[in-house]
Amino acid sequence: MCGTCNGDAAPAATSTADNVAPSTSTRNGVNPARGLSAASPYQRVQDYISNVGRFKIIESTLREGEQFANAFFDLETKIKIAKALDNFGVDYIELTSPVASQASYDDCKAICQLGLKAKILTHVRCNMEDARKAVECGVDGVDLVIGTSSFLREYSHGKSMDMIKSIALEVIAYVKSKGIEVRFSSEDSFRSNLVDILQLYQACDKAGVNRVGVADTVGGATPRMVYDLIRTLRGCVGCDIETHFHDDTGCAVANAHSALEAGATHVDTSVLGIGERNGITPLGALMARMVVTAPDYVKSKYNLKALKSLETLVADAVQINIPFNNPVTGFCAFTHKAGIHAKAILANPSTYEIINPHDFGMTRYVSINSRITGWNAVKARIEQLGLGAEFSDDQVKEVYASPLFSAVFHCTGDIDIMRRTAKIKQMADIRPLAIDDTDSIIRSYHLDLKV
Amino acid sequence: MCGTCNGDAAPAATSTADNVAPSTSTRNGVNPARGLSAASPYQRVQDYISNVGRFKIIESTLREGEQFANAFFDLETKIKIAKALDNFGVDYIELTSPVASQASYDDCKAICQLGLKAKILTHVRCNMEDARKAVECGVDGVDLVIGTSSFLREYSHGKSMDMIKSIALEVIAYVKSKGIEVRFSSEDSFRSNLVDILQLYQACDKAGVNRVGVADTVGGATPRMVYDLIRTLRGCVGCDIETHFHDDTGCAVANAHSALEAGATHVDTSVLGIGERNGITPLGALMARMVVTAPDYVKSKYNLKALKSLETLVADAVQINIPFNNPVTGFCAFTHKAGIHAKAILANPSTYEIINPHDFGMTRYVSINSRITGWNAVKARIEQLGLGAEFSDDQVKEVYASPLFSAVFHCTGDIDIMRRTAKIKQMADIRPLAIDDTDSIIRSYHLDLKV
Repeated sequence: MCGTCNGDAAPAATSTADNVAPSTSTRNGVNPARGLSAASPYQRVQDYISNVGRFKIIESTLREGEQFANAFFDLETKIKIAKALDNFGVDYIELTSPVASQASYDDCKAICQLGLKAKILTHVRCNMEDARKAVECGVDGVDLVIGTSSFLREYSHGKSMDMIKSIALEVIAYVKSKGIEVRFSSEDSFRSNLVDILQLYQACDKAGVNRVGVADTVGGATPRMVYDLIRTLRGCVGCDIETHFHDDTGCAVANAHSALEAGATHVDTSVLGIGERNGITPLGALMARMVVTAPDYVKSKYNLKALKSLETLVADAVQINIPFNNPVTGFCAFTHKAGIHAKAILANPSTYEIINPHDFGMTRYVSINSRITGWNAVKARIEQLGLGAEFSDDQVKEVYASPLFSAVFHCTGDIDIMRRTAKIKQMADIRPLAIDDTDSIIRSYHLDLKV
Repeated sequence: MCGTCNGDAAPAATSTADNVAPSTSTRNGVNPARGLSAASPYQRVQDYISNVGRFKIIESTLREGEQFANAFFDLETKIKIAKALDNFGVDYIELTSPVASQASYDDCKAICQLGLKAKILTHVRCNMEDARKAVECGVDGVDLVIGTSSFLREYSHGKSMDMIKSIALEVIAYVKSKGIEVRFSSEDSFRSNLVDILQLYQACDKAGVNRVGVADTVGGATPRMVYDLIRTLRGCVGCDIETHFHDDTGCAVANAHSALEAGATHVDTSVLGIGERNGITPLGALMARMVVTAPDYVKSKYNLKALKSLETLVADAVQINIPFNNPVTGFCAFTHKAGIHAKAILANPSTYEIINPHDFGMTRYVSINSRITGWNAVKARIEQLGLGAEFSDDQVKEVYASPLFSAVFHCTGDIDIMRRTAKIKQMADIRPLAIDDTDSIIRSYHLDLKV
């Protein structure tokens, strides 16, 4: 499964991606040095229901993202973000309801007229008035939503399931009559009555809806819940299945992956995951996940090297920092520190990297400044400094762990007061070291070699 | 499954948590207003293999966390963190190998002598020399690790599986002879040959190891891979199963949950997830996940209200910001903004919250400052300002959407130049509003009411 091959024992030729789009190679182009093991229990050959190799993205930074606490997007910002998303290669761009405010209406119209490759959707409450406004704006499709859990039926709109169904069918018929796409989504699907929502989805499917939507509105679902619900739904409707996962319990990326495995076709994302509360499946983290699962499809379809600038654009627009632990673009996503990690990474990066940083235009960094540094990392740094030819392995080990000129003194520039008092690991026990500290230790030793 | 009850249709009394520790109630104390639906397809009654209601935490901020790019912990900081973890209620605290450096050795000894409730472990390479150093320090247990994937066997230590087994059995026997706990873990388990590692784990189990460890060292596993591997392993060994998940593809929390569902007993965490690259399963995010799955167990065992200060302590020590989207403690984790969300939250918080913020000593916030604000949120703010009795619903709606005194002018303090030019939604189309902007609009209107 998951487009992986070349494990420890099984020959690479036996591996098959579980679901690859017809246009991509049957081998799925997995980097043989990096794939997950064919000898592992999860190697599911021909998992026909899975869409991990042909999913589509409904990018909702300009809808869900506008519900993020810090978000305020003027038209100029919206256009910049829409163009950047289009350049990245998302399939759909979803916008805030034009009913929300006059600017929301005007901006929706303006973005529809940009001529982007991505289809433009807007997300409205499931009623005729909202649907008419949406159609007026010139969108390619309308995303209808209504709460179906008892919580939302009681405390939000007050409608019975029969009323919901009757309204839904009327609105779907109207949007279809305008010749544009229509999606019907329940809200809070995982706390809705299963039989009720399956009936509702089937009715919408018969009415010719393009997609039904499943939403974990409160972020409480787990991957197994998601797999079970989507798998069940996949057997009940013929239309596409869109999924939307909030991240309150940290499962939004994994849930999206499970949904695709179970037969969902579309995943909602936002850049950095911005949205209500702590947000939804982040576009970048989903790319990190899917490039491992279905590398050929993801690399050929999405402009991965544009991820960093896209995230920076949105982070600046909503005045947040990119989280330190963000997959791919977090400042240390490809930093290797422990001795045994650094040694192996220097021999073969696949030992401790499941993602190739170069696919995203990123680079790796091997830290040599700590008490857990190994001598192999110091050797690599010496080579980076262009001094490799002048150091034997024994000399590298001496830099690494024997008494050496003090970088602390060296940093003052006063060569006379340098003392043979420090070594990298000893110093790293005493205080945090910067890369120029360790470089100074190496260069001091090198000077000494030549004396 | 997942200790949930009180769904839309099924009576609450039919729900049963799948695995509750003997000491906790059979009802598992789920908040009936907040649980996931009993009518949902994922309601698995009596899932005997699952340990979601009796897992243990091996907290590795002082080991894995020390491998984070920014981490430099002196003894004073280590002691502060160890005490804070102990106060939070983690079962084990894992420390960096005493072989790493002199300070690592000395600090390990010092932390063992603190008399904490949590057991102290250290994590060493699987060889006699490292194991002896570990035992010398006075730890309660030794965590042995060795790479088992072909990547690591070829590029890291160069040992065959037979050599690994022979060394492992010798070291396990030695540690056991000292009367302390011993764990044997493979590294990069998901890219290791399944049959090879099952054989190895069985041999260690027979040798009397306390735990075997499964590690997704490169962060490439998915929840279904994890479930399958742990489920298979559960049938092969009788000892406890520890799990360790890196977060490179955003699945570390979900993978931990899947592992527990499949019969794993222990989860490795670090505060904010700090570790190699972008880190491992974060303690806080795991708590967010597990308090939804097994509320009674988690709330009775862990000091959830101490999470925020624990995270702040570690964030300060490694000079990072708590990510904006961190579950529970991110600045907007309980901020509700869109009109339909705010309206329902004000009527019943469970509509859009799967976690009760009060369980973690946090509070919710309903934003009323945007173009997607609804009038119900403005009404709630008016009540918070103590002006509720003086506003009719029609007047609230007028504040919300009709021409009103301008908060912009009002903010200058010059009452004479206030103009009936703005309303909250109109202004929010023009620029970002702060809470004092909207409060000013409300108070201005209120002043006008009294004139």
